Amino acid sequence: FHLKADSQYQGWNRSGFGSLLYLVGPLYKEFGENAMWAIMTVVVVFEFFAGATLSKGLNRGMGTILGGGLGCLAAILSQKVGGIGNSITIGISVFVFGAAATYSRLVPSIKRRYDYGAVIFILTFNLVVVSGLRAGKVIELACERLSTIGMGFTICLFTNLLICPVWASDELHCSIASKFENLACSIEGCLEEYFIMINEKKENQPITSFDGYKSVLHSKSKDESLANFARWEPWHGKFGHNYPWDKYLQIGELLRELAATIISLKGCLQSPQQPPLLLRQSVKEPCEVMASLLACTLRELGESIMNMRRCQPRVLIMPKLQSKRLELSISMTPSKLGSQENGGLAIAGFVFLLMEMVDKVEVLAKEVEELGD
Amino acid sequence: FHLKADSQYQGWNRSGFGSLLYLVGPLYKEFGENAMWAIMTVVVVFEFFAGATLSKGLNRGMGTILGGGLGCLAAILSQKVGGIGNSITIGISVFVFGAAATYSRLVPSIKRRYDYGAVIFILTFNLVVVSGLRAGKVIELACERLSTIGMGFTICLFTNLLICPVWASDELHCSIASKFENLACSIEGCLEEYFIMINEKKENQPITSFDGYKSVLHSKSKDESLANFARWEPWHGKFGHNYPWDKYLQIGELLRELAATIISLKGCLQSPQQPPLLLRQSVKEPCEVMASLLACTLRELGESIMNMRRCQPRVLIMPKLQSKRLELSISMTPSKLGSQENGGLAIAGFVFLLMEMVDKVEVLAKEVEELGD
Repeated sequence: FHLKADSQYQGWNRSGFGSLLYLVGPLYKEFGENAMWAIMTVVVVFEFFAGATLSKGLNRGMGTILGGGLGCLAAILSQKVGGIGNSITIGISVFVFGAAATYSRLVPSIKRRYDYGAVIFILTFNLVVVSGLRAGKVIELACERLSTIGMGFTICLFTNLLICPVWASDELHCSIASKFENLACSIEGCLEEYFIMINEKKENQPITSFDGYKSVLHSKSKDESLANFARWEPWHGKFGHNYPWDKYLQIGELLRELAATIISLKGCLQSPQQPPLLLRQSVKEPCEVMASLLACTLRELGESIMNMRRCQPRVLIMPKLQSKRLELSISMTPSKLGSQENGGLAIAGFVFLLMEMVDKVEVLAKEVEELGD
Repeated sequence: FHLKADSQYQGWNRSGFGSLLYLVGPLYKEFGENAMWAIMTVVVVFEFFAGATLSKGLNRGMGTILGGGLGCLAAILSQKVGGIGNSITIGISVFVFGAAATYSRLVPSIKRRYDYGAVIFILTFNLVVVSGLRAGKVIELACERLSTIGMGFTICLFTNLLICPVWASDELHCSIASKFENLACSIEGCLEEYFIMINEKKENQPITSFDGYKSVLHSKSKDESLANFARWEPWHGKFGHNYPWDKYLQIGELLRELAATIISLKGCLQSPQQPPLLLRQSVKEPCEVMASLLACTLRELGESIMNMRRCQPRVLIMPKLQSKRLELSISMTPSKLGSQENGGLAIAGFVFLLMEMVDKVEVLAKEVEELGD
């Protein structure tokens, strides 16, 4: 998987930085100990995705400037007060600003985008206020540090955005598209296993793995963080600035519901109440046609997202899917369902879940079409 | 919810620290600028859960000591070499150690527990090596900083472990137990809605919300991080040192599978293919008995985990559940299933899903029993 290779690449990259910075070190001799802050910024801010680096870097910058500025003001104020009042003013200001920033972190919309900035704000504010230096010296120190932090950030941005950038938006785009493929494979795998058991049940062969649906089911938090980074990323490639990332999250949600249905379908395979072979054989054909059509629709949708091609599955494929579904439901004659009590119920459950999927895929197709518009 | 209140408490706590540290500041005057590191440690290390603080603090400590020590060695070595070789030695050492540490972060078992330590190691190592100070001064500086970091860590530990500690293990314990209750409510809600539609279908009343299963379905990453913190936490309350947290994760996994089945069950409610009222009425009673028994079993299991009481659901409840299941499957006579094609299929799907749940709850009961042993 390319992510792993990229991670390794990042590893070399990151350690490469340290040496790079060192080798050009003499240039920065005038910055003295503050050169550390440039390295620190690089190590802390450098993230895998371009959007993550941007988000962290900008948050760090804003937090530092805001915290430093307010810290200087508070320090100057407390020095004007002087004496015992000095300590009290500083104590109160630390308490008030710290509490305000910490509370703001509890607001969901702020937490999602500016959490790191708030942490850095608290940190910087406290450092500046508590250091108890004279205002003049604080400002001087702050300027030096800001310039080194800016330098570190610039290096990060340079390598992360210009040299082989890894965009979170690309990753989200591909991961959503590949989920369709995953689910299509899972559906096909389930069907194959269900009907292969008829012939080779005794051989006890290793069950073919089709666990793609599990990774889809647990992808919620990953999708959300990717969408979060993607919002920070500037215009690039095929994505505009106000690209509808929320739509991607909605599609992801629908895919997860489909994956949950596949889990139930797989439950049918492992269920102790199995329908008799003859009964299963009799619905084999319509079920397989249905499943391959479902898988084909999903692949079509996935490809249309991947290539950002407008597709009209509702016009082209859905009527076919609906007619197959009708066929399948007609093929489930009362005599089949009634033949054996347990068996009839199990096969009905299986067929019903397949039909449910048609509805879910239809909703999905609608969303994908809207994304195309 | 108590988590929110605790977060706010933590907010006050955190800003309280800043002022506390400032007010006792004169005591630490001898530490000068290094006092910053104590505050920095507090701000960075202080986490919500005791286990998280411990894990972060210990990781930070180990990373700093290891990185500092190796950094000193590398610095001494490079000074022995001298001249141009100096730069080359430092460059190579930064590269080699940086790469080694970054690679180790890719190993899943290390990443899970020691990721933060590796980051701090890279940071410290680079800072020490690149600073280019003489070895003697580096060691002096390192000792000062370590003592202040230790001080910050001690303050964190003191408040986090002794004053109102919030244990991740308690949180995990309660959240797993409450999931049983959530799922029980969801099952009951589904059944109620399915059969209430018979009488008051036209009134279009707001659907009672029973979305507990959704939070269960998406709890995987939260559970895993809580289990991770819980492993760091020392013996306390009812939890021993080698408490089987893995078992909790397994139970969580089973609960998520059950939640997926409930999603399919809910799909039946929203499905366009609805069975006719008469047919539905005829299976109402056995279905409701079954669902209430399932919910009751789940509640029993949840309570036995909550109170750490040994329970024997497999002996006491499961036989009853199995017999009810048999009753239900017998009540699904061929005539009912065959009465209308679509309707028969839909009701069979619903009943089949309910029966599937019995199997899943049985597996769950087995796991919970094993946890009790």
